[in-house]
Amino acid sequence: MTRSLQEEKVFKDPVHKYIYVQDQTIWDLINTKEFQRLRRIRQLGTCFVTFHGAEHSRFSHSLGVYEVTRKIISQFERNQYEDWPREERLLSLCAALLHDVGHGPFSHSIEKTFGTHHEDWSCRIVLGETEINRVLKQVSPTFPEQVAGVICKTYHKEIVVSLVSSQLDADRMDYLLRDAYFTGVNYGTFDLERILRIIRPFQGHIVVKESGMHAVEDYLMSRYQMYWQVYFHPVTRSAEIILQKVFGRAKHLYEENYEFSFMLPPLLSLFRKTLTVQEYHMLDEAFMQTVLAQWSTEQDPILSDLCSRFLNRRLFKYVKLEQLDIKQLEKLRVVMQDAGIDPTFYMEIDFPSDLSYDVYRPGEHDENLPILLLDQHDQLTEISQKSEIIRSISGIHKGQYHLYFPEELLQVDRSTIPTELRNLLDAED
Amino acid sequence: MTRSLQEEKVFKDPVHKYIYVQDQTIWDLINTKEFQRLRRIRQLGTCFVTFHGAEHSRFSHSLGVYEVTRKIISQFERNQYEDWPREERLLSLCAALLHDVGHGPFSHSIEKTFGTHHEDWSCRIVLGETEINRVLKQVSPTFPEQVAGVICKTYHKEIVVSLVSSQLDADRMDYLLRDAYFTGVNYGTFDLERILRIIRPFQGHIVVKESGMHAVEDYLMSRYQMYWQVYFHPVTRSAEIILQKVFGRAKHLYEENYEFSFMLPPLLSLFRKTLTVQEYHMLDEAFMQTVLAQWSTEQDPILSDLCSRFLNRRLFKYVKLEQLDIKQLEKLRVVMQDAGIDPTFYMEIDFPSDLSYDVYRPGEHDENLPILLLDQHDQLTEISQKSEIIRSISGIHKGQYHLYFPEELLQVDRSTIPTELRNLLDAED
Amino acid sequence: MTRSLQEEKVFKDPVHKYIYVQDQTIWDLINTKEFQRLRRIRQLGTCFVTFHGAEHSRFSHSLGVYEVTRKIISQFERNQYEDWPREERLLSLCAALLHDVGHGPFSHSIEKTFGTHHEDWSCRIVLGETEINRVLKQVSPTFPEQVAGVICKTYHKEIVVSLVSSQLDADRMDYLLRDAYFTGVNYGTFDLERILRIIRPFQGHIVVKESGMHAVEDYLMSRYQMYWQVYFHPVTRSAEIILQKVFGRAKHLYEENYEFSFMLPPLLSLFRKTLTVQEYHMLDEAFMQTVLAQWSTEQDPILSDLCSRFLNRRLFKYVKLEQLDIKQLEKLRVVMQDAGIDPTFYMEIDFPSDLSYDVYRPGEHDENLPILLLDQHDQLTEISQKSEIIRSISGIHKGQYHLYFPEELLQVDRSTIPTELRNLLDAED
Amino acid sequence: MTRSLQEEKVFKDPVHKYIYVQDQTIWDLINTKEFQRLRRIRQLGTCFVTFHGAEHSRFSHSLGVYEVTRKIISQFERNQYEDWPREERLLSLCAALLHDVGHGPFSHSIEKTFGTHHEDWSCRIVLGETEINRVLKQVSPTFPEQVAGVICKTYHKEIVVSLVSSQLDADRMDYLLRDAYFTGVNYGTFDLERILRIIRPFQGHIVVKESGMHAVEDYLMSRYQMYWQVYFHPVTRSAEIILQKVFGRAKHLYEENYEFSFMLPPLLSLFRKTLTVQEYHMLDEAFMQTVLAQWSTEQDPILSDLCSRFLNRRLFKYVKLEQLDIKQLEKLRVVMQDAGIDPTFYMEIDFPSDLSYDVYRPGEHDENLPILLLDQHDQLTEISQKSEIIRSISGIHKGQYHLYFPEELLQVDRSTIPTELRNLLDAED
Repeated sequence: MTRSLQEEKVFKDPVHKYIYVQDQTIWDLINTKEFQRLRRIRQLGTCFVTFHGAEHSRFSHSLGVYEVTRKIISQFERNQYEDWPREERLLSLCAALLHDVGHGPFSHSIEKTFGTHHEDWSCRIVLGETEINRVLKQVSPTFPEQVAGVICKTYHKEIVVSLVSSQLDADRMDYLLRDAYFTGVNYGTFDLERILRIIRPFQGHIVVKESGMHAVEDYLMSRYQMYWQVYFHPVTRSAEIILQKVFGRAKHLYEENYEFSFMLPPLLSLFRKTLTVQEYHMLDEAFMQTVLAQWSTEQDPILSDLCSRFLNRRLFKYVKLEQLDIKQLEKLRVVMQDAGIDPTFYMEIDFPSDLSYDVYRPGEHDENLPILLLDQHDQLTEISQKSEIIRSISGIHKGQYHLYFPEELLQVDRSTIPTELRNLLDAED
Repeated sequence: MTRSLQEEKVFKDPVHKYIYVQDQTIWDLINTKEFQRLRRIRQLGTCFVTFHGAEHSRFSHSLGVYEVTRKIISQFERNQYEDWPREERLLSLCAALLHDVGHGPFSHSIEKTFGTHHEDWSCRIVLGETEINRVLKQVSPTFPEQVAGVICKTYHKEIVVSLVSSQLDADRMDYLLRDAYFTGVNYGTFDLERILRIIRPFQGHIVVKESGMHAVEDYLMSRYQMYWQVYFHPVTRSAEIILQKVFGRAKHLYEENYEFSFMLPPLLSLFRKTLTVQEYHMLDEAFMQTVLAQWSTEQDPILSDLCSRFLNRRLFKYVKLEQLDIKQLEKLRVVMQDAGIDPTFYMEIDFPSDLSYDVYRPGEHDENLPILLLDQHDQLTEISQKSEIIRSISGIHKGQYHLYFPEELLQVDRSTIPTELRNLLDAED
Repeated sequence: MTRSLQEEKVFKDPVHKYIYVQDQTIWDLINTKEFQRLRRIRQLGTCFVTFHGAEHSRFSHSLGVYEVTRKIISQFERNQYEDWPREERLLSLCAALLHDVGHGPFSHSIEKTFGTHHEDWSCRIVLGETEINRVLKQVSPTFPEQVAGVICKTYHKEIVVSLVSSQLDADRMDYLLRDAYFTGVNYGTFDLERILRIIRPFQGHIVVKESGMHAVEDYLMSRYQMYWQVYFHPVTRSAEIILQKVFGRAKHLYEENYEFSFMLPPLLSLFRKTLTVQEYHMLDEAFMQTVLAQWSTEQDPILSDLCSRFLNRRLFKYVKLEQLDIKQLEKLRVVMQDAGIDPTFYMEIDFPSDLSYDVYRPGEHDENLPILLLDQHDQLTEISQKSEIIRSISGIHKGQYHLYFPEELLQVDRSTIPTELRNLLDAED
Repeated sequence: MTRSLQEEKVFKDPVHKYIYVQDQTIWDLINTKEFQRLRRIRQLGTCFVTFHGAEHSRFSHSLGVYEVTRKIISQFERNQYEDWPREERLLSLCAALLHDVGHGPFSHSIEKTFGTHHEDWSCRIVLGETEINRVLKQVSPTFPEQVAGVICKTYHKEIVVSLVSSQLDADRMDYLLRDAYFTGVNYGTFDLERILRIIRPFQGHIVVKESGMHAVEDYLMSRYQMYWQVYFHPVTRSAEIILQKVFGRAKHLYEENYEFSFMLPPLLSLFRKTLTVQEYHMLDEAFMQTVLAQWSTEQDPILSDLCSRFLNRRLFKYVKLEQLDIKQLEKLRVVMQDAGIDPTFYMEIDFPSDLSYDVYRPGEHDENLPILLLDQHDQLTEISQKSEIIRSISGIHKGQYHLYFPEELLQVDRSTIPTELRNLLDAED
């Protein structure tokens, strides 16, 4: 059952000016406690340590993805494109709004340490005993399954899935603009109106008119710049690594039956891998930061030190590695151990592209929804076949190794460190 | 002792593009744990419930106030104005950076309930056993006292105080621009470069060239709009009132020796009014939100309900009151009590101008630093003498009464409610 | 006959991002030579001498007025307001697009000297033998008359007229934003989307929801600032006055049968007041500037000097007059004459509000379409009854006298000038 | 002789907010009639027919180039870089301000037809009997020669030349931002502040710190987008081609002793190649547009038709050519001639990269000042050696053939046109 709101509601939004809500279901979803919880999860995790404006929440991003989807569909409807299945409007909007609802605090670190996946949680929340589930069921009994299907990319109509998850989706269009706005950089800005004008539904796909190729180049260049200037910024990575070390240490202590002076139920369940949807709801960034603050006075010196490093921004230093020299790193471990610094919790090699890297790379795994150009003879071509620039972005920058370590290491007696290591550590970025 | 940094450092900032740090002392202050704590205090408290972009921190605002002050001083130095005491540069910059360092979580609610004052805490932090104090002492043994003096407006040179606290100070110039940016409204934008060009030091004051009067009008209109559209927005006020009720209820329970199932030391000291600087440091918004989350399952039904209202944004409704009719409100209390709703914790009359209202009002308390125009004959005139617009802003909008109450009240058996009350509650905003 | 375009056309516009054309008639009107001529008329006349960005044309403004009107109507239609007469859509759009089509080069100066009126010319062009007339007639034989009626405010439905000409019309909304954008000032920016959200058709008027009063205050303050900072800027006025003197001198010479070494037909008809629509078409700013360039080598020393002053920006100086002292000015004339400077062509008292001044003033002539607030009881109130700020703008700044004169006057033997006059001329702005 | 202004002067500028003038010489240069003439030359020639906002003048661009240069030098001075020759400040600023002073109306078309060069005219104006020359001589007798040397790239210090003319110069930095602003596109925006932070003087060059490579990539991508989306836009090219045809026809008529009913001295000298600096001064775009307007009623049907096409925007249509098929074009000429359309004046093959194309291409002619990266070991590397993206821009998009012809050709009896030609002409863009 679909109901329009008697009067359109709006949210003031810095990126899209206003976000327009016209459906009762969307309005009700926004007001569920599970969706409100996204206010307490930052969109960019630890990025705020580098760009102090980046405090924006997944709540605002989720509204933004909804709004971009609404605009795309509204364009499709206004132009009366026959290839757009009009009956999928509400499903698309709900999936757009809810696709990130399973995100936890500092997702990357937590997921890496505890093996959780936010997509799974999104589906559990949509399908479980939640306020969201109740709202969705009012549309139809099978509606929650459909929404979960779109989020998990198993829904049978690719065109609906690709609105929310593809190389040119509402998710990326919102986050590039939003993250650029809140960090204050301007690499992420591209002309959203123009992208909206050049895409259209075609034979079950969302495709781009060939004359709009340059607009897509511009959008992909923005993405490329955002990845290398913002998302993979080594200072952000440093904070991320410290968080991973914190959770790694805590898990280690838990497994060794260490008695934590501060512990709360959802945390315990996280360690035990028995988290329920209700407990997961408690796990927000406020909770996590309070845990870190409390743990900064734990007896275990490694845990307390790592926690206070994160809170007070005494991050690890980093140097760029031209290549990965395993022997050299082994020597470094020895030096650290001799100096009383445990390398397991105080050293890391980071290679950003290990992450959920999505600079556009056709041909790689997960790239089953590439960007297709539609020419005047109704032929489709994958875009990097026509754009040398996109080809050049796709092939390069496979990643960059960085070594992270605490500044204290530089105060170790220099004579105990092999020369080549010293040069390595002394390098300036 | 004043030291320049070997190389200028910058922070990327959405409002000022870049924030430039040139002094070792400023750099060291930013890296203290007390200053880093400001990352965990929102600039606008509960405003994010209305404007979802308003998640920016006092950390970013404090850097912004520093930057505006730096720009003002740099202009004074470039123009070689003799009335500017050049030796006060570092003191002004430190005070600008630190003036908000004593802010706690959701300051207004906490201060109202527990009688704390953030200015006092700023001074305690500057003067106490803190990292900030250590950094300041490196400049000179008396430097912390000087900084505290500027923050508390007791420093003997008005011109230094007025950079940070006056009707046209760096604090307001930054927050109007910053709050407008992050909320996404554009009422708060004014031409900062132009203001910088028209102010100058003159006989111990900071004054405005008369030809710049319209620029000040524009700035004050921005302030006026921000107050009535953003800062006093009734939805934000509603969240604020719920917070006050939460703390009021908790205090009440504490005084009645209620056994809290969740309690942590700094909170206890807050109740006992024995907070130390070290405990105060723990009191950030992450801490407070975790407390609210934990208390949302407390046994006391009022406390747990109020907490979950705040977290899940089930706010109080509100109606505008044309006037304050005490008898009518008394009747409302009775209706509420009869319906089993405790009016002490579920009803509030709010009158925004009771707050730290600073729409420009010469003549009122605290307005000892009005805006002065300097004419071509070197005569000074208070600006509202010359600008009818400023006069009109100063005199009006003394405030607006709103009544806040829970939506459930509207479901009470209508026949038990006197007619005029029913009309009142049913009014739409 | 109304026809939609097969595919929506767009113009890239810096102010509205894109301008959307959906009707064949609008598209055809834009492509007429009379509308294309507006590219050769600057929107802000002589303002470019003060703000060098202000080179934008009436062509872009006219498209902007059309676009704002289109957005307003689209909002009315989306909300299905019954008080909006849907059949008036195309008429409103055409009138919006064409309302300025009769503007000539440097309209104010030409109109003042030769007694022409751009509104009359707009109607003559709409009704005459023109490409525009032919396009309009394709809609219906009486359509040109209807369009002319809206432009000249005689059309019988006030709501259509008020879209284009009222205190809160599409014309002003576009020009404030556009002039602010191209001059680079930011006083003229207000939140157009928000204004669009708060207006609605009501009983034959366009009214404002009372809750949107602050938005209108913000818009009117922008207007106020633009008038006093941009439109009445004394440097712009100085260039305007020189132009008036040029035309005045030329008219004087023509009447004295002076033989111009450069003269072209439309100019001659302007002198003779026999301009046809076809000749008027030739009169654009390129033409006028070429005339000024050619006349800068005319034999008449006053005409050639005034022309080269305008082209090379050797403008008149100005001083503010606290009051109008007729006797003093009489003395000044004598001094000028004695110095061989003809005061008729080299001196002017300017009082900007004599111009088409539209800072909002209810009660004055032409203000038959004031801004009305609609409250929740469907009562209408004129806005300055409720807003003290608007009242304060309405009542003040009735104007400011400035005296304009050539710099050479300051080199006249000082002893020949009465003291009080000397002080007057020496004053700095 | 170098003199500071008593008080800094400013120009309000939409791109740089304010333009600051601190030297008497700069102020005096701006006030010369030769510099004021740039107000009457559009920065982007015929581009306004495509982007209606693009009416900005070379006057505003020239001020912008000056301002960017001032900011660069100010950064060099603030950082006390030893490789910057401080004594070259005023020379650099003057050359930056004046580098475009020789631009004529619609430069490209005029230069192509009459073989003039704006660089030559810039030098003639700097060195000739002009107000500019007089102002420069007040600095020193040889100063005009030095300024001309920098403009013509013969000055002996590369670092000064490269500020104004290189792959990363003040000229391009201003025009990309300015053209993007006035057209309203946002491809041209890059982070100027960031570029300013990463460049520095080094051994006689201006180089880029290696860590700033991504910023340069972003800047070059902006350039690439602006070229293909704005500067080479086929509609703009169409207007340009018509202008060339106009001038070509007029030259042809002049050579055939045709009697023009409208002719003025500077135009005659342009035909005769005897233009003096004084006559050149008269040749501005107002003049040229007036000539076109007058010629639109010339007896010669080709000249009058072409002129009215330009003024009324009845441009040539265009189709993209996959390759250049000489035989096919020969057939087209025959078809046109048979239809009574002279192909010499009504057909053109355009290949944009023939123009002053400056998408970054190291190795090609004129590219003697490539962008150099400075690494931490003080080694210099040409940037495309390190950036695959820049390599990809450099190598591609050598150009695109378009065929331009009048729409009337499509109304020719189809049976007379060979099939393949018909398909060609019917193609849609």
